[in-house]
Amino acid sequence: MAGKYAFGIDLGGTTVKEGLFNEKGEVLEKWEIPTRTEENGKNILPDIAKSLKDKIKEKKLDPSDILGIGIDVPGPVLDGGIVNNCVNLGWGVVNVPQELSGMLGGIKVEAVNDANAAALGEQWKGGGRGFKSMLMVTLGTGVGGGLIINGKIVNGSHGAGAEIGHMPVNPHEEETCGCGKKGCLEQYCSATGIVRIGRKRLEKTKKSTILVNNEELSAKTIFDAAKEGDEVAKEIVEEFGEILGRALANITAVTDPEAIVIGGGVSKAGDIVTDVVSRYYKPNAFHACRTCVIKLAELGNDAGMYGAVKMVL
Amino acid sequence: MAGKYAFGIDLGGTTVKEGLFNEKGEVLEKWEIPTRTEENGKNILPDIAKSLKDKIKEKKLDPSDILGIGIDVPGPVLDGGIVNNCVNLGWGVVNVPQELSGMLGGIKVEAVNDANAAALGEQWKGGGRGFKSMLMVTLGTGVGGGLIINGKIVNGSHGAGAEIGHMPVNPHEEETCGCGKKGCLEQYCSATGIVRIGRKRLEKTKKSTILVNNEELSAKTIFDAAKEGDEVAKEIVEEFGEILGRALANITAVTDPEAIVIGGGVSKAGDIVTDVVSRYYKPNAFHACRTCVIKLAELGNDAGMYGAVKMVL
Repeated sequence: MAGKYAFGIDLGGTTVKEGLFNEKGEVLEKWEIPTRTEENGKNILPDIAKSLKDKIKEKKLDPSDILGIGIDVPGPVLDGGIVNNCVNLGWGVVNVPQELSGMLGGIKVEAVNDANAAALGEQWKGGGRGFKSMLMVTLGTGVGGGLIINGKIVNGSHGAGAEIGHMPVNPHEEETCGCGKKGCLEQYCSATGIVRIGRKRLEKTKKSTILVNNEELSAKTIFDAAKEGDEVAKEIVEEFGEILGRALANITAVTDPEAIVIGGGVSKAGDIVTDVVSRYYKPNAFHACRTCVIKLAELGNDAGMYGAVKMVL
Repeated sequence: MAGKYAFGIDLGGTTVKEGLFNEKGEVLEKWEIPTRTEENGKNILPDIAKSLKDKIKEKKLDPSDILGIGIDVPGPVLDGGIVNNCVNLGWGVVNVPQELSGMLGGIKVEAVNDANAAALGEQWKGGGRGFKSMLMVTLGTGVGGGLIINGKIVNGSHGAGAEIGHMPVNPHEEETCGCGKKGCLEQYCSATGIVRIGRKRLEKTKKSTILVNNEELSAKTIFDAAKEGDEVAKEIVEEFGEILGRALANITAVTDPEAIVIGGGVSKAGDIVTDVVSRYYKPNAFHACRTCVIKLAELGNDAGMYGAVKMVL
């Protein structure tokens, strides 16, 4: 094939999503390989290198036409691309750009944290198009974030930039977060957090509700019931919205972005999420930050892959 | 005089502090002029221009040897130096670099928000030396902030970068902040905020205390009493420390700086301030951010002038 190409790689804890892109950033082909985390994840980078070599061969690409490889990882990445303890992969400190580039004859490699990659992807091709400064909020199993200021990702001094899931939002919480603290944002606003606050409300409420406090209770069933007008589900959604809206008002008073883009599994519930969050965000936000746009992400699971490849395009 | 020079100007609501610096950033002379805010502050920039022209004449400086003029203002400054509604000066939108440069034969002028200037000054010559990313917290009549990430000030999309005084920290507050919201950080942690929470505690307490709830109650008398072991004063200091420590843990989970430098009038109380804030910061901070250094500012009232001149050196 003629022209210039790049690879975007979204390295997750169970699957590696890979994409071949042209130089305009259009995806030409997507595929997946499993993430082998056994033995401290020693096979992960060789597996990726092999998969890319196979694709280069299959497509008859000239390695000199490959502009680079962008890869995101589910853990803290320091400036320079060194991964600093990526628990989900079994990794300690890994110089991903150096190692992967070495396995691929020196092709340029850039590494980025997965939440930051999603932010870059959404800014480039998704809900954040047109904004130079934005915060990406990912509401999944946990709550992740990616902060872009004037086009640049804020990695943070310890790779903890936009670790918004662990903002302390409730001094009275008694249950412990996965991080060891109590009262973190993700204890209330992640998919699991929403179920947790839902269960508490269901235990106490005397109101009738279509929600059932069993194994099937999920963020989706709660948002679906709220859309149908269920009072208890609506109360849970309000609690979620108030906590997240206030947290976002704290963030914008410090970083003052143009937009907040909300993605992750929870955001699939749609406008109900941005509506309730905006309703609590605006009265809590500093007046100059009230015009900050709050909108839904658009790229779904591909955001990370797009953001990763953007690093080398 | 031979060599290259620059002026640093700290434009406050009542006084303009001006300094002549050599190219190494050493201050050669400091002086002040009054800030004339009448008639929408129309005299402010001409007064500054005249003062600088007089100094240039007095010192027999060659205008071509003047590297530039850095000026800080007590209001939001957009990227490019345009001041966006500076209430304390009576100003609407003012292009300070263009106007002041025009009055001074084209000498380069850079404008910066005063809290951001203090941050730059402390990073350059004060408590923030050696840190590429830092947060400056100014505890004065209000609570101000300046955020530097990788050496660059975060002005924010609406000039509201690091407006940390208006982070919403208490959803249960009944009194209104100067900004119109309720429960802002500065209602508890500014000099006036500390007195406010002090008065509330003095009204309710049954403990004996050397503090008297009269006109003379101030942040200083409270910290002084706490240092002498007064139980009620210590409780007030703990309340202050808990609120500020938790707010800082929220900020570092988003911006992950290397250091937090605390300045402003309240910081003159000394180590008692950083000690109590650190004690509440650490358990609330995300684990990767717990090593963030919390220390006192060193430049006092000169921080803004140093930061301003740094813009042109």
